[in-house]
Amino acid sequence: MTNRTLGVLGGMGPLASAHFMSRLTLLTPAATDQEHIPAVLWSDPRVPDRTQARSGGPDPLPLLLRGVAGLQAAGCGAIAIPCNTAHGWYREMAAATPLPILHIVDATAEALRRVAPSGTVGVMGTAGTLAMRLYQDRLGELGWNVITPDEAETARLVSPAIASVKANRLAESYAPLAETAELLASRGALAVVLGCTEIPLGIQAGPHHDIAVPLIDTIDALALAAIRWAKPAA
Amino acid sequence: MTNRTLGVLGGMGPLASAHFMSRLTLLTPAATDQEHIPAVLWSDPRVPDRTQARSGGPDPLPLLLRGVAGLQAAGCGAIAIPCNTAHGWYREMAAATPLPILHIVDATAEALRRVAPSGTVGVMGTAGTLAMRLYQDRLGELGWNVITPDEAETARLVSPAIASVKANRLAESYAPLAETAELLASRGALAVVLGCTEIPLGIQAGPHHDIAVPLIDTIDALALAAIRWAKPAA
Repeated sequence: MTNRTLGVLGGMGPLASAHFMSRLTLLTPAATDQEHIPAVLWSDPRVPDRTQARSGGPDPLPLLLRGVAGLQAAGCGAIAIPCNTAHGWYREMAAATPLPILHIVDATAEALRRVAPSGTVGVMGTAGTLAMRLYQDRLGELGWNVITPDEAETARLVSPAIASVKANRLAESYAPLAETAELLASRGALAVVLGCTEIPLGIQAGPHHDIAVPLIDTIDALALAAIRWAKPAA
Repeated sequence: MTNRTLGVLGGMGPLASAHFMSRLTLLTPAATDQEHIPAVLWSDPRVPDRTQARSGGPDPLPLLLRGVAGLQAAGCGAIAIPCNTAHGWYREMAAATPLPILHIVDATAEALRRVAPSGTVGVMGTAGTLAMRLYQDRLGELGWNVITPDEAETARLVSPAIASVKANRLAESYAPLAETAELLASRGALAVVLGCTEIPLGIQAGPHHDIAVPLIDTIDALALAAIRWAKPAA
């Protein structure tokens, strides 16, 4: 494969990375199979839970690095990781490979610029993603004021919804996710980032067009960044 | 990775293999990420068109073998290929690897047994799949009477619909596919096999519950066979 083959470090969760592959395909301008982007998806759902690792659970880094090495050995030219929380180990992964790793927060900032170029934005995500300040710091440096649900709201609404998606129970994850988005909007968010790749899957399982604030899908944002990398002329 | 890691030789087309990964996930009994099936998807949409190869086009075998070797090197324990026509090169691929390759027609026969255990069944597919008699011979040996659209019907209805899916134009592929299924039913088919992995995607883009004959989705059939391999106890 040429160096325009995309490596996808996935399985976190597996439905999110499968959905990423679909969105990568559907968002690519192509008229035949041969015009689509070659890719290798390394879907290892056994990577220890990224949020639990923050509170003393097993370290996900060894399996993350095994995936990075596997994608490099397969001949990939760049890596995309459709899991927000895994970006807490971005530096260690980037140090272990010469391949560029597309950062999901940068991809999201690119999407956010079109919808809410400045001001207050909301971010929902796993407890791990919020505690590591993946979005708060990076979007803050770029000029946005970032608000998030508080710890109790994340624990009551967002974390159980993410767990439902990972257990293939998509429908029941919608209501708490929609409630969280509306909550952030009521506190001034001009847009809400779905900062965990399970969240767009849960949101799409319900009447999300009713939610009265623009939502930024981090799966689509990362897929678009990957297409810009693979097809710079497109 | 252990030898229960599934290798998926995909990209033929890329949307079908992404959808296969979603269905593999959704059909797996799992309550957390870690209970899902580890998999590597080798999605190389550059594999030359399998049907065109039958009439003098470039040979897909070298890139098929490269994918098989890549999945073997990644540590996979078996291979699934969510492309029916590629099974025309099954023997050559199986000879090139010690890994078992799950055959999509066997997986489909397993699904068919539950819906139409004997009698006449219809099969729609690419011109290549039908000309190579992938379904007619194998299902015939198992006791079914297999009928297919004739060459003119495949050229007028099925082939353009498959091309539409590969070009991300799913909605317009529905009507000709539904017409073909009804045609086969009117000729006595008790069930119709969607014997090209693009066809279920096109069928699902329209009101397929209106079609008055059971449809066998070869993506789901192959995903279920893969789950039986990965989780024999489940």
